[in-house]
Amino acid sequence: MKQYNVAILGATGAVGQQMLQCLEEQEFPIANLKLLASARSAGKRVSFAGEDVVVEEARDEAFDGVDIVLGAAENDIAKRFVPVAREKGCVTVDNSSAYRLDPDVPLVVPEVNPEDVARHNGIIANPNCATIIALVAVNPLHKVGGIKRMIVSTYQAASGAGIGGLRELEAQMAAIGAGQPVGDPKAFAYQLACNLIPQIGGFDAAGYTSEEMKLQNEGRKIMHLPELRVNCTCVRVPVMRSHSESITLEFEREVSVEAAREALAAAPGVKLVDDPANLAYPMPLDTTDQDLIYVGRVREDISAAPGSHGLALWCCGDQIRKGAATNAVQIAKLLVAQG
Amino acid sequence: MKQYNVAILGATGAVGQQMLQCLEEQEFPIANLKLLASARSAGKRVSFAGEDVVVEEARDEAFDGVDIVLGAAENDIAKRFVPVAREKGCVTVDNSSAYRLDPDVPLVVPEVNPEDVARHNGIIANPNCATIIALVAVNPLHKVGGIKRMIVSTYQAASGAGIGGLRELEAQMAAIGAGQPVGDPKAFAYQLACNLIPQIGGFDAAGYTSEEMKLQNEGRKIMHLPELRVNCTCVRVPVMRSHSESITLEFEREVSVEAAREALAAAPGVKLVDDPANLAYPMPLDTTDQDLIYVGRVREDISAAPGSHGLALWCCGDQIRKGAATNAVQIAKLLVAQG
Repeated sequence: MKQYNVAILGATGAVGQQMLQCLEEQEFPIANLKLLASARSAGKRVSFAGEDVVVEEARDEAFDGVDIVLGAAENDIAKRFVPVAREKGCVTVDNSSAYRLDPDVPLVVPEVNPEDVARHNGIIANPNCATIIALVAVNPLHKVGGIKRMIVSTYQAASGAGIGGLRELEAQMAAIGAGQPVGDPKAFAYQLACNLIPQIGGFDAAGYTSEEMKLQNEGRKIMHLPELRVNCTCVRVPVMRSHSESITLEFEREVSVEAAREALAAAPGVKLVDDPANLAYPMPLDTTDQDLIYVGRVREDISAAPGSHGLALWCCGDQIRKGAATNAVQIAKLLVAQG
Repeated sequence: MKQYNVAILGATGAVGQQMLQCLEEQEFPIANLKLLASARSAGKRVSFAGEDVVVEEARDEAFDGVDIVLGAAENDIAKRFVPVAREKGCVTVDNSSAYRLDPDVPLVVPEVNPEDVARHNGIIANPNCATIIALVAVNPLHKVGGIKRMIVSTYQAASGAGIGGLRELEAQMAAIGAGQPVGDPKAFAYQLACNLIPQIGGFDAAGYTSEEMKLQNEGRKIMHLPELRVNCTCVRVPVMRSHSESITLEFEREVSVEAAREALAAAPGVKLVDDPANLAYPMPLDTTDQDLIYVGRVREDISAAPGSHGLALWCCGDQIRKGAATNAVQIAKLLVAQG
């Protein structure tokens, strides 16, 4: 089997570290692995498949000889290095939002549009975490009934703000638990423990945040539904690393609850957890540190207008894994499978 | 000014204790105050307006001579004692769900349908907490555009499960903060700290919980809109005592964002907190232990079908105060004002 030289750009962050673990778990065919990060992290040793790998500073020369780059860095770092990597012949699977809406760049959720990987031009974008989680849950139902509209309220975990977000929530809970004052927030604009923050990203003129608009903009591109209408409210909640979403769907054609459950039970990447009588439904604690999207609370939308077709559901997924690292490694595996 | 003999039924619970505080804050004209609870709590001393009041066991005779009963007990206790109180000539403002949908019993949010108090027959019901909070926010917009449909996702605080719910969440956070194991949950079906539980109340055959159906059933009655369609997803979140709700509204007529903000700014019981540029929006920490419903994130529903009229908003309110005790005391004040 052919083996590949792989680099992780932003290897020391929450997503980069998870990518490393996913590469190992998914037995990715690696010849040589480079871990790239800021100068500050250079020299650190990280364990991979039983060996120590030394973190290198990300510089242009670092991409020489690399086949596949997994990008786990912020937009500014991605914009700085991804074009360099492309010039040097690497293919980058990039988790930043810098290239997601570029018409020249496929945006891929392997369970939804794996075929788009083939038309890459050196860059494939990894979608927003809340978008990936929603689409893995919703696409099987779209295939049954044709989705027209989604109304989504998210319950997003601290890990969306990286390791700093996780540490801050932990420290706040410890302070509250010990009866100590909660210090000034840094990773978030406000205290997150015992609170909810209805803002993720900056606001546009219409009053939507950048995170809220991703679900419509990226959803349209991934599902090849340019007319899809999405109204999203994104809320940060005091949960560690799994996002949850309350989703109301409007379909072109009728989708019964039974047909929806069947489609979800058979769908790749989905675990149907929907047995109300036994108090079984998705919860973010249960989806922590695994790759499946749990979907449940599937029911008819009783508010749908007569003659229209609606369903409501609730889903949870690990934000660092399927929301970021796992999805990127799955894309890299599709690349390898396609040669 | 005439003074009234008042009893609180269920005086030692979270809502009962808050009723006591609201009576004092709102300078309710009290001649004599009785605090009624289970035999287990009888004999406890509670401070009210600088004096100690001894808790009595709730028995039929306890209602003799009482004018107004504030009911803060569960359904079974309410069903046991509210009819007795009515026979003895008391008027009960009851916070349980036992009488809310009884056609003979007004269900009142003073900011929405104060006129319904007058047609009471010895019982006035206090609505569900999430319903009160949503309707205070939504009614001013209904007056502008006529509401047809609401799609609601709730973020409900631990206090909805009473003092036991609050203590359990505190204990779980302390355990997590100290690196100790989180014990078995009792107040909730699952661990709430760092988690979300998408179930409040029991499930019906269609897959909705009792809490979810309250918003439609009680909302229709309070707003006198028998055709109102509501699709609700109720989720317990690790927040202490303020509920938050993400609400998408469909109107008969156009309601601009500007008109909506004007209506909300002028509405009783509402504080408009909607200045995204300065990161001002409602958060449950900020609405803790006060009586206003904070409303913000007001924006056009960009997923509304062409020709239809939609808005999205986010609101927060203290579940124990306006969601229960404050609303009940406000109803009692309307009773007094109407003689």
